[in-house]
Amino acid sequence: MAARSYGQHCAVAKSLDVVGDRWTLLVVRELLDGPRRYRDLLSALAPIATDVLAGRLRDLEASGLVDRRALPRPASGATYALTGDGRALEDVINAYARWGRHLIERRSPGDVVRPEWLVRAVRAYVRPDRDGPPVSLRLATPDGSAAVAITADRIDTLADDEDVDVTLSGAAEIVAAAMNPARVAELLTAGRLRIDGDPDAVRRLGQLFAPVPVRS
Amino acid sequence: MAARSYGQHCAVAKSLDVVGDRWTLLVVRELLDGPRRYRDLLSALAPIATDVLAGRLRDLEASGLVDRRALPRPASGATYALTGDGRALEDVINAYARWGRHLIERRSPGDVVRPEWLVRAVRAYVRPDRDGPPVSLRLATPDGSAAVAITADRIDTLADDEDVDVTLSGAAEIVAAAMNPARVAELLTAGRLRIDGDPDAVRRLGQLFAPVPVRS
Repeated sequence: MAARSYGQHCAVAKSLDVVGDRWTLLVVRELLDGPRRYRDLLSALAPIATDVLAGRLRDLEASGLVDRRALPRPASGATYALTGDGRALEDVINAYARWGRHLIERRSPGDVVRPEWLVRAVRAYVRPDRDGPPVSLRLATPDGSAAVAITADRIDTLADDEDVDVTLSGAAEIVAAAMNPARVAELLTAGRLRIDGDPDAVRRLGQLFAPVPVRS
Repeated sequence: MAARSYGQHCAVAKSLDVVGDRWTLLVVRELLDGPRRYRDLLSALAPIATDVLAGRLRDLEASGLVDRRALPRPASGATYALTGDGRALEDVINAYARWGRHLIERRSPGDVVRPEWLVRAVRAYVRPDRDGPPVSLRLATPDGSAAVAITADRIDTLADDEDVDVTLSGAAEIVAAAMNPARVAELLTAGRLRIDGDPDAVRRLGQLFAPVPVRS
């Protein structure tokens, strides 16, 4: 719980009392991918300060959003996992990801990219009403790659050496932009995006994402 | 734009760079109800400090989320209105409202209630796939009342003296809890909630809200 409450009997303000502190939602974003050790979170969220991360995890545990589980011996330390209430924050996180999608179509100098964050974008941007057979997809960037299998009702991360139906290759901001079908032709023509894979699977992939207006 | 960027090329982190500062989303929440003068925002968001509000409005204007419009003479001052990008934050705000709905089913001592925030809850909790004829609803609490007309594709605030089909009366936290059909019978039986109106309209109202699991 944040040190200071807004003191407003409003579901938005009360939620921000719990998860509105700086860094808190980004800790939750990392834990949506599965339980993590402290040192993994510290590395994924760099340059977060270690006392800030420890404080946020304590707050999340006190609010019932994260469970801390001691590792079985002989290992030492603990893992942190979201509870059901914590996982329910995925809707808030995906709403932010959709609202800010144009912000990752350009890259600011010095910004770090992790392939897991592009997978977060896939999860937020695929149509909730999609159907049809599964498509597996690799996002290949100079900053690393990630692979996912998209089915009608779930999206699973794949091991990075698994064969996939389609690979999108390019800079992270180009791969992000390519999740908007309205931009794909332009990016291919300019030679900034490469798509490899079975033409049928490429076509199905294009139907999994809803086009959004292109910003100049 | 926040003073400090997370430095992460991720649509969630980039969004929080823009709207993650304390108070910012609550300023947007107020402006979703329409353009406001500075002094109206200061009063609706009390106890926000005046320099904090001024700073947040400047940041929102610099990020293209709010337009400042000088009032025509002889009036002085300005109104603040959301741009299209600003209004698009309603999805994020409603996601928070849904996540935190159990938090307003009890009232913390000292918390302020404004009827507009209960209308925000209505907007967040009605089924997006609702249909059927319109229902108008008054939420009457000891802290003030508000009225809305709910149609298949929009929710409009009504003048507070307009006739409505259904009135829910009770403490703010009871009226909030009554937006979950799974709790209505218990609240009526306990005498904590009162429902007045045409039985057909009451039945239709009950179908506009999706039941959610009741917490003990």
